[in-house]
Amino acid sequence: MNYKIYVVGTKLQKFYDNAIKEYNKRLSRYCKCSLLFVKNKEELLKKLSPKSYKICISSCGIQLSSEELAHKINHFGVSGKSDIAIIIGTNELPYDECLSIGPMDMDLGLMATILFEQIYRSYRIINNQPYHK
Amino acid sequence: MNYKIYVVGTKLQKFYDNAIKEYNKRLSRYCKCSLLFVKNKEELLKKLSPKSYKICISSCGIQLSSEELAHKINHFGVSGKSDIAIIIGTNELPYDECLSIGPMDMDLGLMATILFEQIYRSYRIINNQPYHK
Repeated sequence: MNYKIYVVGTKLQKFYDNAIKEYNKRLSRYCKCSLLFVKNKEELLKKLSPKSYKICISSCGIQLSSEELAHKINHFGVSGKSDIAIIIGTNELPYDECLSIGPMDMDLGLMATILFEQIYRSYRIINNQPYHK
Repeated sequence: MNYKIYVVGTKLQKFYDNAIKEYNKRLSRYCKCSLLFVKNKEELLKKLSPKSYKICISSCGIQLSSEELAHKINHFGVSGKSDIAIIIGTNELPYDECLSIGPMDMDLGLMATILFEQIYRSYRIINNQPYHK
């Protein structure tokens, strides 16, 4: 599985960067995750592969529990969706589904950290492993 | 306003600690926020002041948008609730209200970071200030 997490907007604050690096290290045994920055929607549209399954994160999307997210990720694996693009910072583009973390507005770095933490948590759930590293 | 955020369980990972320190620095012009660690529910019950307004954070609580949280925090100020205890890691104690970030299970350090970020965001909203520092 190959996840590309696109952040539309600015670079992240250092502590979020460090959090993501740590989760990415832990995730490396399960999947490939990359964090990519784009300036705006136009640059994002140019970079997105048409083959990618596109998930947009927005407060008006569908909320999932960690178990439901794990189930979804597991299903991606078995249904051949191996290239997942997750987009934070805009929902003004064609997407396959829109998910929500909750109704609060959040710093994009914090949202990206939550996503990495939840993807890591999902793989621990899928593999029946305890959460702690 | 005086916020005490109680974490029931372990210490936080370094990057969450750094994130909270940064938000706490930014918050210092608006309120006093402290992060306190307790080992278990019993220790928490001993430390909680009976005067505190107790908010428990749990995935089964009520979800608020950032604007609704700002409104609530503003109302605390005008209604004389100046001592707020926010508890993460257990909901097995008497509380005044239970709020939720979303349905996902989360690392307690990540939850604490979200709370600090949202309290900071609330004060920026209350004071009609742009979010960025």
